[in-house]
Amino acid sequence: VTTVDTSERGAGLLDLLERAAAGSIPATSQLITAVEARSPGALAVLDRVYARGGGAHVVGITGAPGSGKSTLTTVLAQELRARGDRVAIVAVDPSSSLTGGAILGDRIRMTSLVLDPGVFVRSMSTRGALGGLARATTDAVAVLDATGWDWVIVETVGVGQAEVEIAQLARTTVVVSVPGLGDDIQAIKAGLLEVADVHVVNKIDRPDANRTRKELLSMLHLGPMPGSEDWQVPVLGTSASRGEGVEELADVLVKHREWHLGSPRRAAREREAALARIQAIAKELVAERIGSPSAAPDLEATLDAVLAHRLTPAAAAELLIDRLPDRPSDHRSIERHAR
Amino acid sequence: VTTVDTSERGAGLLDLLERAAAGSIPATSQLITAVEARSPGALAVLDRVYARGGGAHVVGITGAPGSGKSTLTTVLAQELRARGDRVAIVAVDPSSSLTGGAILGDRIRMTSLVLDPGVFVRSMSTRGALGGLARATTDAVAVLDATGWDWVIVETVGVGQAEVEIAQLARTTVVVSVPGLGDDIQAIKAGLLEVADVHVVNKIDRPDANRTRKELLSMLHLGPMPGSEDWQVPVLGTSASRGEGVEELADVLVKHREWHLGSPRRAAREREAALARIQAIAKELVAERIGSPSAAPDLEATLDAVLAHRLTPAAAAELLIDRLPDRPSDHRSIERHAR
Repeated sequence: VTTVDTSERGAGLLDLLERAAAGSIPATSQLITAVEARSPGALAVLDRVYARGGGAHVVGITGAPGSGKSTLTTVLAQELRARGDRVAIVAVDPSSSLTGGAILGDRIRMTSLVLDPGVFVRSMSTRGALGGLARATTDAVAVLDATGWDWVIVETVGVGQAEVEIAQLARTTVVVSVPGLGDDIQAIKAGLLEVADVHVVNKIDRPDANRTRKELLSMLHLGPMPGSEDWQVPVLGTSASRGEGVEELADVLVKHREWHLGSPRRAAREREAALARIQAIAKELVAERIGSPSAAPDLEATLDAVLAHRLTPAAAAELLIDRLPDRPSDHRSIERHAR
Repeated sequence: VTTVDTSERGAGLLDLLERAAAGSIPATSQLITAVEARSPGALAVLDRVYARGGGAHVVGITGAPGSGKSTLTTVLAQELRARGDRVAIVAVDPSSSLTGGAILGDRIRMTSLVLDPGVFVRSMSTRGALGGLARATTDAVAVLDATGWDWVIVETVGVGQAEVEIAQLARTTVVVSVPGLGDDIQAIKAGLLEVADVHVVNKIDRPDANRTRKELLSMLHLGPMPGSEDWQVPVLGTSASRGEGVEELADVLVKHREWHLGSPRRAAREREAALARIQAIAKELVAERIGSPSAAPDLEATLDAVLAHRLTPAAAAELLIDRLPDRPSDHRSIERHAR
């Protein structure tokens, strides 16, 4: 039997953090893995990671499936790289445990970047993400934010409520649309309209691209975007596969980064984003605890009551939330931190 | 000033429930609205609603955007209606408060059904859904389940984690794919693979439909579907716009309903579904409470600590969950219900 000295493991993670900050790709990758798996010492290292954060500009790229987000992310990373910046990509992958979690097509398209030490690509999947995808992604972005990357691009595959929440990690959110995918794409566009700082119509070479652009512009005129009082949300056209419009997109991202830093609403925006992040993580934690018989001792009796139609699911949810036992707090308290 | 007698309002809702159960479409619609808005007396009526439930077969129809789900739902409802059944449709609409929440295209396509008293169509949006979309949808389905509908079809527009959870309301989940929408559609298909009891490849007249069907079949052979030991998940082809394959889909749904009722794992399946429902609602409740300063008195101090990099978002989420005050329980306790 091998015993592992936890404090030594923690020291190992601090060493990883130093090497990651010095530019080591393998160290960065190992650190993210350790943090995701909540290895011994991970929480202490995360405190250091968050204390160092704030150096990167985090860009979220999200939008309708089939919109070519991965290709756009790849060519955008190449463009930013060509300008001398270090670029990290976090690709959030909703695929299931059943199929192993890898979206090969997307990853293969990124390989042209893989040998460049100024580029880091990480794929996050629900598989193995203890405490959920939002927490794992938030922590991975924090590691990259603390280790000298100029840009962290969070690409979310799929569009939905949880995915929009993950997009709120970003200081700049890019929503990608494509022409002519039918009615419910329009609906999704509507759901994403509010979160966009920048709109991109990709596959601009398609015949109905102009209509899509005009529709977006008219939707943008329906109401003011919350939090973007003095930022005029642009609607760009790109053809990621041909590399068209990518320079303009990079210019707009640089401009939005400057705008964000100088915005009088910056503090309020960051507060809203922090709350959204905390809420997304809390949702995952609560769902995990409610489903765990040790954390929710009333679970079986409550399920019996719901299945016997004696209790509504909403009332059951409230009961289980109220009855969640306080967790033994591992190493923190509001008193210590919230001063 | 008009004073409203709460008990009288409650009596009004009970009357609505009786009229809904007798087949009144307006009463059904008003009851769902009252329950969604948590009008006075709504919780008491919900207890009655849940106590009466279990009569309908709930079918979830979900899948990639642009797959023609709405059209398929419409023609399927027509087919089931032609067989003499009463069919209710709950269309879950992710569009934002900004654009008003209506997906006109989808709704217009359903109008051919609107004048038939054997058909009920309800659109659910995040707008106005107190306590979140999962709770509102769960309750609406419960109302329909308790008021004599043979089929309740829950159509979820958009694909994502939250939307997959909503699909778990269903006893039979139909996942709709379409040929040739590109790589990340495949990813979404992968994410939805496990939840499907029935796969439909829509727009089967397209040239690459056969490839999509074969890909699905090969993915299905990668591993056994959890909970479907003796149900062979079929892969059907439809062309919803031409009405092709819809009879076969209806036949398969009838077959799956029978299989479900006779399955030795039925109790376990229903228990899992109930837990998933409760978890989805709990997530929404917790996010709502954490964001509300009255329910989470430590919120501002915690946000300060996160923004100052003194606290990680994950630690903040745990703190806020642990500190949520117990709500004064309105009218229920586990002791009363969980016997």
